[in-house]
Amino acid sequence: MQHHPARLIAKKRDGGDLTAAEIQDLVSGVVDGTLGDAQLGAFLMAVCCNGMTATETAALTLAMRDSGRVLEHAQVAKPKIDKHSTGGVGDKVSLLLAPLVAAAGVAVPMVSGRGLGHTGGTIDKLAALPGYRTDLSLERFSQVVEQCGYAMMAPSADLAPADRRMYATRDISGTVESIPLITSSILSKKLAEGIDGLVMDVKCGRAAFMVEEHDAVALMEGLVATGRQAGIKMAALLTDMDHPLGLALGNGLEVAEVLAAIEGECPADLRELTLALGAEMLLLAGVAKDTEAARATLERLWRDGVVRQVFRHNLELQGGDLRVLDDATALGKARVVLPVEAPRSGHVVDVDPLVLGQIVVDLGGGRRQPTDVIDPHVGIVLKHVLGDTVRTGDALAFVHARDAASANAAASRVLAAMPIGEERKKRGPLVRRRLG
Amino acid sequence: MQHHPARLIAKKRDGGDLTAAEIQDLVSGVVDGTLGDAQLGAFLMAVCCNGMTATETAALTLAMRDSGRVLEHAQVAKPKIDKHSTGGVGDKVSLLLAPLVAAAGVAVPMVSGRGLGHTGGTIDKLAALPGYRTDLSLERFSQVVEQCGYAMMAPSADLAPADRRMYATRDISGTVESIPLITSSILSKKLAEGIDGLVMDVKCGRAAFMVEEHDAVALMEGLVATGRQAGIKMAALLTDMDHPLGLALGNGLEVAEVLAAIEGECPADLRELTLALGAEMLLLAGVAKDTEAARATLERLWRDGVVRQVFRHNLELQGGDLRVLDDATALGKARVVLPVEAPRSGHVVDVDPLVLGQIVVDLGGGRRQPTDVIDPHVGIVLKHVLGDTVRTGDALAFVHARDAASANAAASRVLAAMPIGEERKKRGPLVRRRLG
Repeated sequence: MQHHPARLIAKKRDGGDLTAAEIQDLVSGVVDGTLGDAQLGAFLMAVCCNGMTATETAALTLAMRDSGRVLEHAQVAKPKIDKHSTGGVGDKVSLLLAPLVAAAGVAVPMVSGRGLGHTGGTIDKLAALPGYRTDLSLERFSQVVEQCGYAMMAPSADLAPADRRMYATRDISGTVESIPLITSSILSKKLAEGIDGLVMDVKCGRAAFMVEEHDAVALMEGLVATGRQAGIKMAALLTDMDHPLGLALGNGLEVAEVLAAIEGECPADLRELTLALGAEMLLLAGVAKDTEAARATLERLWRDGVVRQVFRHNLELQGGDLRVLDDATALGKARVVLPVEAPRSGHVVDVDPLVLGQIVVDLGGGRRQPTDVIDPHVGIVLKHVLGDTVRTGDALAFVHARDAASANAAASRVLAAMPIGEERKKRGPLVRRRLG
Repeated sequence: MQHHPARLIAKKRDGGDLTAAEIQDLVSGVVDGTLGDAQLGAFLMAVCCNGMTATETAALTLAMRDSGRVLEHAQVAKPKIDKHSTGGVGDKVSLLLAPLVAAAGVAVPMVSGRGLGHTGGTIDKLAALPGYRTDLSLERFSQVVEQCGYAMMAPSADLAPADRRMYATRDISGTVESIPLITSSILSKKLAEGIDGLVMDVKCGRAAFMVEEHDAVALMEGLVATGRQAGIKMAALLTDMDHPLGLALGNGLEVAEVLAAIEGECPADLRELTLALGAEMLLLAGVAKDTEAARATLERLWRDGVVRQVFRHNLELQGGDLRVLDDATALGKARVVLPVEAPRSGHVVDVDPLVLGQIVVDLGGGRRQPTDVIDPHVGIVLKHVLGDTVRTGDALAFVHARDAASANAAASRVLAAMPIGEERKKRGPLVRRRLG
């Protein structure tokens, strides 16, 4: 570092604005280790307490992007657009969206994360696909995008390495909840993918990172403004996470839901969100004149099996077992599958995604600690959603578990998360706001 | 730690008040290492940004005190009172004050620090006394207090060990400037000495840690309130550090000034501050009925040679070479002594303690880094102070240096720090405020 770290940290502590050169210096210290852990913790907390201007946030994002390689995809002529979600329960949209948008002539270079806690990660879901490789080299990643229109890979140590250390430090030091830090963490990695545009799915609700709508809106606005300042096209949807997305929760079960969806059998909310995000991506790519046209294109490609072809091609290129396309049992299954039966007749008056997500973690389908190993087969498949009418003994859901004991424990918790009552409730809108 | 560190840190980040149990938990994590560096840095910054209530600061102070041994001095029946200064240039008061107050029947168990930067440390001054040992065991420290009324020792790893790690972390992470953190750092160590009362000398001015009076007042008030909440008697003086204290700057030269002062030859400001602080200590100890009586007692003990006897006794007990009492040359001296001559006639219109303190450091008499080794012989002896009339060629000061080159470099800087002009300026009051 060129500046004395304590001086830069104290400047932010005292509410000052850091210059782009000062921010670059701090980020270089993050990468080469000349900024120590205590200094990094103090800096991150100073940002949490005093914030950053839009200009500072953009400078931080670019410095973090430039801390490693920035992909160019020189062989890919198509517009390159990605989607990122802030994370929710049952959110398997990426697996469906990438081939859908790629089918429409947009390149989707997608680097995804692993899950922690009740929100799953795309990379964990892909790990449930037998043979599928997400540990691609950056060259191979770009090749796969060129050849089939999209590629999915796990975080590479070469992309935005500054974020890796900053993220790990934030996680342990109470400095996660800061819009400039969240924004720069997300966007630095996405910018390193070499994209022209990004659609953000900012989740809002009790199982989302942002529970309150005004916090989610602030994050959405920060992401869009910073992304644009960093030179890419941005759009964002603020979407509901007061309920799980789709019916399957748990990595292998979610992959099975995606495989069925590709064939046309798709829960309404999953279909709706996938189309809404896909339409935004097509608009950013400039391959559709308006939302209606974009949706019509995507619906046609989906219905006509083009999405299935693109998905199959990607599966081939990334080493996945093609049998899963015709036979979902190739995914494997949990030893115990236990129905959760309605204890009375009435309507489903709640489906709590936070509780359900935690049950999946406790079944072994998620991580409490970053080092936990995930069981791809366990989880929950809902048979009913909010407002459905049920009779005593109807299956509300099925628990997929490793053994009878964990299945029984999970089943009684699922019951509590899906109470039956008199009132017939309706779910609120799936897409609450749009920023385009 | 019992609580999750990130949760406690986030509570302070969000402006919450930590309970005493939560603060104890954090401090136990500081000592046993379960609170990592990044977490400690983030916590300290959260305190810098959001502050602490008086109750939290007292809880932090007590938890830090209790992180190690707390002395009891079971064999010492006298009231035990200490003095602590926030640090200034030429501040050798402790060396004179401890025997003076001990002569009046007050026990003074004094654990002092080393200097860093332009402010010296008592332990460094004592290191200039041939043979004098400050690395006492805690048992020996208490014995010396019992036998001669006072003892002076370097920080022990067994006293307030939490502060050691916190202080080092604050120094590098831009988290020094926080009144709750400064207060708990100072008081935890002083409380561990097993004292009944403490007089704080809070320096204020351009060479002080607190440059602005309102900051110094806030620190003074915080120290007094927290000390009382922690169960000891407190008094504080806010004193001038816009000028050096006394005439000698540099460890051995300051010891020589103290030796002369004990014999009665003492610069007026040093004498005044020593008596003012000493009177406060006697009042806290309950051995004087009012300030006037306390001062009269101290002046008599000083004049009658009792202070000299106590100093001598302590010197004997802590291994010092007794010859220094009769022959200051036993202290040794610098190879080069160079007069700094007035370039014109007029009045001394400034004596800048910050610049002079930095010159002493650059001569080798202080530390830039904690690991620097100090030369006890170098420094500056002022021959004139603010407002003095001088003629061309008069010696303004003498530079004591290792070689001619560093002496010459220092001399020209001393000249710049002691400009001669027409105006006859007067120094402001030495004691600016009192909080008793």
